[in-house]
Amino acid sequence: MIIVTKPEATEEQLQHLLDRIKEAGLKAEVSRGAQRTVVGVIGAEDVIREMPLAAIPGVESVTPVLKPYKLVAREFRGQTGVVKIGDVAVGGKEVVIMSGPCSVESRAQIVGIGREIAKAGARILRGGAFKPRTSPYSFQGLGVDGLKLLAEARAETGLPIITEVMDPRDLESIEQYADCLQVGARNMQNFSLLKEVGRSKLPVMLKRGMSATIKDLLMSAEYILSEGNFNVLLCERGIRTFETATRNTLDLNAVPVLQAETHLPVVVDPTHGIGLREHVTSMALAAVACGADAIMCEVHDSPENAKSDGEQALLPHEFEDLVQRVKKVAEAVGRTV
Amino acid sequence: MIIVTKPEATEEQLQHLLDRIKEAGLKAEVSRGAQRTVVGVIGAEDVIREMPLAAIPGVESVTPVLKPYKLVAREFRGQTGVVKIGDVAVGGKEVVIMSGPCSVESRAQIVGIGREIAKAGARILRGGAFKPRTSPYSFQGLGVDGLKLLAEARAETGLPIITEVMDPRDLESIEQYADCLQVGARNMQNFSLLKEVGRSKLPVMLKRGMSATIKDLLMSAEYILSEGNFNVLLCERGIRTFETATRNTLDLNAVPVLQAETHLPVVVDPTHGIGLREHVTSMALAAVACGADAIMCEVHDSPENAKSDGEQALLPHEFEDLVQRVKKVAEAVGRTV
Amino acid sequence: MIIVTKPEATEEQLQHLLDRIKEAGLKAEVSRGAQRTVVGVIGAEDVIREMPLAAIPGVESVTPVLKPYKLVAREFRGQTGVVKIGDVAVGGKEVVIMSGPCSVESRAQIVGIGREIAKAGARILRGGAFKPRTSPYSFQGLGVDGLKLLAEARAETGLPIITEVMDPRDLESIEQYADCLQVGARNMQNFSLLKEVGRSKLPVMLKRGMSATIKDLLMSAEYILSEGNFNVLLCERGIRTFETATRNTLDLNAVPVLQAETHLPVVVDPTHGIGLREHVTSMALAAVACGADAIMCEVHDSPENAKSDGEQALLPHEFEDLVQRVKKVAEAVGRTV
Amino acid sequence: MIIVTKPEATEEQLQHLLDRIKEAGLKAEVSRGAQRTVVGVIGAEDVIREMPLAAIPGVESVTPVLKPYKLVAREFRGQTGVVKIGDVAVGGKEVVIMSGPCSVESRAQIVGIGREIAKAGARILRGGAFKPRTSPYSFQGLGVDGLKLLAEARAETGLPIITEVMDPRDLESIEQYADCLQVGARNMQNFSLLKEVGRSKLPVMLKRGMSATIKDLLMSAEYILSEGNFNVLLCERGIRTFETATRNTLDLNAVPVLQAETHLPVVVDPTHGIGLREHVTSMALAAVACGADAIMCEVHDSPENAKSDGEQALLPHEFEDLVQRVKKVAEAVGRTV
Repeated sequence: MIIVTKPEATEEQLQHLLDRIKEAGLKAEVSRGAQRTVVGVIGAEDVIREMPLAAIPGVESVTPVLKPYKLVAREFRGQTGVVKIGDVAVGGKEVVIMSGPCSVESRAQIVGIGREIAKAGARILRGGAFKPRTSPYSFQGLGVDGLKLLAEARAETGLPIITEVMDPRDLESIEQYADCLQVGARNMQNFSLLKEVGRSKLPVMLKRGMSATIKDLLMSAEYILSEGNFNVLLCERGIRTFETATRNTLDLNAVPVLQAETHLPVVVDPTHGIGLREHVTSMALAAVACGADAIMCEVHDSPENAKSDGEQALLPHEFEDLVQRVKKVAEAVGRTV
Repeated sequence: MIIVTKPEATEEQLQHLLDRIKEAGLKAEVSRGAQRTVVGVIGAEDVIREMPLAAIPGVESVTPVLKPYKLVAREFRGQTGVVKIGDVAVGGKEVVIMSGPCSVESRAQIVGIGREIAKAGARILRGGAFKPRTSPYSFQGLGVDGLKLLAEARAETGLPIITEVMDPRDLESIEQYADCLQVGARNMQNFSLLKEVGRSKLPVMLKRGMSATIKDLLMSAEYILSEGNFNVLLCERGIRTFETATRNTLDLNAVPVLQAETHLPVVVDPTHGIGLREHVTSMALAAVACGADAIMCEVHDSPENAKSDGEQALLPHEFEDLVQRVKKVAEAVGRTV
Repeated sequence: MIIVTKPEATEEQLQHLLDRIKEAGLKAEVSRGAQRTVVGVIGAEDVIREMPLAAIPGVESVTPVLKPYKLVAREFRGQTGVVKIGDVAVGGKEVVIMSGPCSVESRAQIVGIGREIAKAGARILRGGAFKPRTSPYSFQGLGVDGLKLLAEARAETGLPIITEVMDPRDLESIEQYADCLQVGARNMQNFSLLKEVGRSKLPVMLKRGMSATIKDLLMSAEYILSEGNFNVLLCERGIRTFETATRNTLDLNAVPVLQAETHLPVVVDPTHGIGLREHVTSMALAAVACGADAIMCEVHDSPENAKSDGEQALLPHEFEDLVQRVKKVAEAVGRTV
Repeated sequence: MIIVTKPEATEEQLQHLLDRIKEAGLKAEVSRGAQRTVVGVIGAEDVIREMPLAAIPGVESVTPVLKPYKLVAREFRGQTGVVKIGDVAVGGKEVVIMSGPCSVESRAQIVGIGREIAKAGARILRGGAFKPRTSPYSFQGLGVDGLKLLAEARAETGLPIITEVMDPRDLESIEQYADCLQVGARNMQNFSLLKEVGRSKLPVMLKRGMSATIKDLLMSAEYILSEGNFNVLLCERGIRTFETATRNTLDLNAVPVLQAETHLPVVVDPTHGIGLREHVTSMALAAVACGADAIMCEVHDSPENAKSDGEQALLPHEFEDLVQRVKKVAEAVGRTV
């Protein structure tokens, strides 16, 4: 922790600051410059991270030296971990492709799409049963019935399934059916939910919030790990910027930055990220090129009849093409599909 | 709904689009330009709002004509409504001042601060018992004990209390103590929670999410009203932008825009909005000048010992000064304090 | 300057860093923590501000202690300065109102509007002769003819005039007619232009760029002052965010922050800031409440025939109302109009 | 153009709107809904694009149907064009690599780096002689002397050179030495400069501004083409968002979107885009995977001594590695290097 005082700070204020640091059991080193005094705090930063040092009169700024996360830090493990969803390993040499419709709509739909994407090369089936929708008047998902249909699709295709949990009260029933839990972008800082999935035995894919910094995303993951669940995937799915030509701004910069900061595998969702069907494949290729461990993209057999997000869903044959092209780029960067 | 086709759209694609509109029971008017065809859809827009028309081949863009919200729309009521918190009316001529510490920390603290702000002119006492914190290692609030202390402070000061609900499972106990529920910025799109508070008998203050557009905020409020609870306040508390000199960017533009769009009263939180203690008062004055119905700001009697957000809390005497200055500006714009 | 090393930094790397600091004639204080070493650099920070210390192997981060601007810093003067435009003082007790059309269109238009706003209380007349337009096919301004018309309007109304300079090559002719130069948001980092207006004898109003931080704005002003021209006004006119309900996001937080950081007076342009005619007055009131030294807003006698920005221009009678309301708020905060 | 009226619009207001459209020589089609009337304008949209229709009383919104740009539109040419810089073609099958230091610093430096990058596979040499710097106290470039050194480096290496022009008055001397002009992000809306380079015989690389939408970028390019210069490259170099872990947010979404919208080749600058040396290569790979026609990245032989941007420059051997890896990804997407 580095504390800089204001030019007009008094000796008394400085002394009070030093007393507070000492009280907390830490050591301070004082460097007096011509205009400001700099106080370096030596020792375990967490002890005083929670102290509102900037509220002490005479203090101009407080800059932490250490990262605020521990369990998610790459240093904790030293390399990318592998998270298993069913029997599929994410975080190894294989770039895993997750796919499926936005929402589960019917048995025929989810089983049909599941079969097509399995044949094309998908390894994990996604499908929403509980849907977070901007409007209360929009389709809210089939709920538990949707979960059952997902389980049937798994039985038919052999693909493990991932589905979203929005409410801690739904967790128990979702756990009966799913192989992986998804926490959506809008719930990335729903801390009650994070704690709850942190106590689950299932792996969790945590999506980055629309205005979440990379640090925020890591802190939210830290919530899950701190409850004991280390099987966490982080998913970049686009942030909100001033650009309106795309639905969101898929922030691929986050991929290498996350991989340097954490041991958790990184998934990229180009579908929500760019939100334009014709460009989903381009962004999937880019994601793999810069190091994504998995790709999640939405497929629908009849987008114009989809109950949600039809505008951005790929048709099955477009998805097949995506997989073929992703395979080539994966090989070019030393991975497989 | 206005649909524009692509330059290369075929007659067949256009016909298919018209068939879909007709199937939905609506009428289409077709205007053929040199480069694009424009299709205007006449009739109840909600019928097809959920149809992914942009997924139909040949469609370039779909622009809604009507607003996606109904119950929150100003047209629904024609004027600003009044929401009562205890016996305090928000949305009338009086600009209501809500204040208190970020977190409830002890009986002495909440009762002490409560008394000081009541004397200075605050009408409602705030204080967090369940705290959404970025880090799992930060103080998470006193929970139900905090609620009880709030109730004691109400008994001592006569001020009705507002406190945050983060988890639907906590709602029942919070309802026993609180006069108004707060849904925080990070839960603005926690739709399960919105539905739950929509079924409560208590008024709800909904804070704008850090990356929520004004439309998003209104849609989230629509969730609450659609469950039957019309006693909703909207709170502008700063959005996330590229600017780092301030903690958030308090978006006062939202105040007049919201007041033109909705009948719900508008609260402004300058404390989180700018995040710098020395400038909270300036932003409170600005908020009142542009029409805010209420102001919420944080006060602490010993900011450097606060368990959360001490850096931005006003001291009681600074708050007193704020109230005096707010009063003058309120009068200048035809309101009272 | 505070330098933090990487956990894996070697002693050799640290020594190399210390050598570089010593070479520059500065002193380093080293604090060794368990995980990182912190190096505080004592002495004139500017000497090494330009050294890319972060490029030195083993360095994790470099944090400056001192502000990168000098001449614009409040400490340089100790109080808000007064800048005179013609005989009107900006930065004193009076909140100065600048107004006029977006573009000069004809003699009748600029003289007519000039008279109306003068009567209503404006103190300075604005009008664009050289117009920065997003499209090359839009009206680009009347150029020198527009300047002549502005001068005629000044003769008729007695109001000093402010007009935009876009190109260093136009400066000489603009200086013959104008009382104050405006550098527009799109040219805020056109450093050639900044140097040129820094050599002018006229005062300069520098508008904040759409993605400029407050620090960027101050650094651009520093360019002007460093060439010898200290008569600079800073203008907040809205930044670009994700919000689309308003044209820009008028960032009023910048007003108190700038006033704490610099001695330069602060102008607010609510017209471009919110971009919605019906809400310009609300934002003007807010700007004055939080401390703006001047307000600039656009007026047109026939907005629907305006050659630029008609959508956001006030009618003369709306402007008259704005001035009356601004006057009341100004008095409430101890200023005059 | 589609115009929607307000619910409270009168018949008289509607008639006035229709009269204005008719006066402009266009045809209007009126669709009356229950709550709003929609007016579709048929005919050449440019005729009324400049009319401030939204300023007409009773109008709620105005939505253009056609794109505001013409010459840059993909439809104008039907395919990606090829722009030649010296004898190097950008926009064909080859992904062109441009590289060099941020600033030209000395003969030894620019010739030395030029030789290393040429050997590694770069096809074009970059180097700044006129530097746009945030601070007036930073190194501002060697000016004309820098241009001469660039010309010497071209003679030694055979690589054509690209360098930035900041001021219309410098253009003539830059044209004597350069093979391609660069307009920097901060000058993307310096319309005087755009017109000037539009009259040059040299190709121009236009960098996207930090807060420029894709549409803004295309409109700025339209300025250049409208003056007769069709040899324009567009460069994505990162936008400004709330994320602070990276210097900018490289927006790769812009690559496929631009390629669908325009015939101009697209360059990506991963160096400024992410601003972190260790991640430049990852972003270069991603850029090529999603379709970039060229990559620009900065190389320095002694980053810690660089006069600008040393923190983000690659060492020559890192650049060599980048080229080898880019080559593989280029091949995977059917391109060459």
